[in-house]
Amino acid sequence: EPDEAAARAVRARQANLTKPPGSLGRLEEIAEWLAAWQGREMPAADRVLVAIFAGNHGVAARGVSAYPAEVTAQMVANFSAGGAAINQLARAFGLALKVVPLDLARPTQDFTLTSAMSEEDCAQAMECGAQALDDEIDLLCIGEMGIGNTTAAAALFHALFGGEAAAWVGPGTGVQGPALQAKVEVVEAAARRARQSSGPGEMPPLGALRQLGGREIAAMAGAILAARHRRVPVLVDGFVATAAAAVVHRMAPGAIDHCLVGHLSAEPAHERAVRAIGKRPLLSLDMRLGEGSGAALAVAVAKAAVATHSGMATFESAAVSRESGAGS
Amino acid sequence: EPDEAAARAVRARQANLTKPPGSLGRLEEIAEWLAAWQGREMPAADRVLVAIFAGNHGVAARGVSAYPAEVTAQMVANFSAGGAAINQLARAFGLALKVVPLDLARPTQDFTLTSAMSEEDCAQAMECGAQALDDEIDLLCIGEMGIGNTTAAAALFHALFGGEAAAWVGPGTGVQGPALQAKVEVVEAAARRARQSSGPGEMPPLGALRQLGGREIAAMAGAILAARHRRVPVLVDGFVATAAAAVVHRMAPGAIDHCLVGHLSAEPAHERAVRAIGKRPLLSLDMRLGEGSGAALAVAVAKAAVATHSGMATFESAAVSRESGAGS
Repeated sequence: EPDEAAARAVRARQANLTKPPGSLGRLEEIAEWLAAWQGREMPAADRVLVAIFAGNHGVAARGVSAYPAEVTAQMVANFSAGGAAINQLARAFGLALKVVPLDLARPTQDFTLTSAMSEEDCAQAMECGAQALDDEIDLLCIGEMGIGNTTAAAALFHALFGGEAAAWVGPGTGVQGPALQAKVEVVEAAARRARQSSGPGEMPPLGALRQLGGREIAAMAGAILAARHRRVPVLVDGFVATAAAAVVHRMAPGAIDHCLVGHLSAEPAHERAVRAIGKRPLLSLDMRLGEGSGAALAVAVAKAAVATHSGMATFESAAVSRESGAGS
Repeated sequence: EPDEAAARAVRARQANLTKPPGSLGRLEEIAEWLAAWQGREMPAADRVLVAIFAGNHGVAARGVSAYPAEVTAQMVANFSAGGAAINQLARAFGLALKVVPLDLARPTQDFTLTSAMSEEDCAQAMECGAQALDDEIDLLCIGEMGIGNTTAAAALFHALFGGEAAAWVGPGTGVQGPALQAKVEVVEAAARRARQSSGPGEMPPLGALRQLGGREIAAMAGAILAARHRRVPVLVDGFVATAAAAVVHRMAPGAIDHCLVGHLSAEPAHERAVRAIGKRPLLSLDMRLGEGSGAALAVAVAKAAVATHSGMATFESAAVSRESGAGS
């Protein structure tokens, strides 16, 4: 649970730093959030890990993506060779990068026909996600790669939060027109099948994950849960990563209080999704790439929060006058 | 003028990088903007200067700020000692920092009574701003410090763009209640006096600057003009820096095309101001500190844009399949 004493210490220090109270805005909120979840008065953002999980999806055969399914494995090779966007962001901001391909040769099942994963499959993927936390880190970014996975994410949001399927479906990598309409129908069919299979009442979040998710989404959910136990705050990437956070969010109240969303995706339904999990993204730069790119970019904001919080002078040490009204 | 060939080269390269077209959002826009104004096909963001101009304001004696006027000089000392927020941000992101105090012992005149600056004063301050560009740099951040200067900025916006004075006035460092109402009245009185003094017709932008600005605002305007001549793109900081950009914007169409606004300030009128100059800020993190802090934080986004643009593999080099629809 959050360390309230650490959070109080951050607030007390903020009030003495040479700036008008509150004038660093969300940087102050982030410093307090980091301290509370790291359990120390001086937050850190030095050892940052970007964990990218990759999975393949049976539903990709239904033409829901602008790219062929082999691109998942090709992009994993590109991550290893250092050629992807996330490699450049990790290098620019000094972040460690771990890429975890999850059984790419064996896609999940087509979830319009049957459950995407068996219970064992889903649990194994979650455990893979948890293992990404094995090293000591200050902050975790979670991201993904998986052709077809915005369809899985949309189906999960639809099952977890209701509404029309069309409200959760968007272009992903770039589908439009009739293909986009087909994607909506795939999500409708999948959610209908999952509801029938899960029986009456609300679908349990882990059931929804198994029915409609994918291995990379299960792995991200596992990483979020493991991070909570290890006192590691998490920056969640875009649309698909938010689906993993949504699963954990529905498990218990406050279950993702140790998570922030790094970036609001250009995928239209992301705004609705982040509202549904009670988050306000740090950045909004029209990106829609995945790979943890939005979370990695948000690390710059976290580093700025830590740098200002730990490095600034106080009014006393710098001999700067306080507000005219204060102290009188 | 922007280098259209460089911009075209950026767009051509973007189309071949291993990502769905457009999926890096504003990072792609920034790479193109940097290349066009730097006049080279591969944009750079290595040598970045944060220039902070400090000025004192006669109008501060009217109680428009929550802080006493001596804080301007105290904060300049804090910048020199490395204790301010901007020092930590500059260190965190590897930015050079130049602090230029402008005749702090001699505040501008109270612009409710007479012109803030003489023509000579204003021209000298603009020249000081231009000199900040003396070294070779890839990107300039402009920021400021000056107790009372959100009042000057509000008066400038009111003179340049019209509307009600109250729509341009906000709490600044934290004034509220009757003091905030007094600040509105100060801006109204100043604008009325300036209009009478400037005669019929639209107030020329440099006239408005001299009448209602301050030395640090004039310096920022001078820096923006000099940056244009030297092919240096500019990241403009918050509310007060935007007032300098607004003066240049009113001089000629496209005069601030080489500028982006780094951060949307929590000062409520900043949103109206950035719309008036046709900009969309890169960040929105509820900050309202000045000191170039919002622009400095936005440098992280520019560095990310350059890193992805220059470092990513192409579809060909990484052997990643393109969109199914393409090339067929």
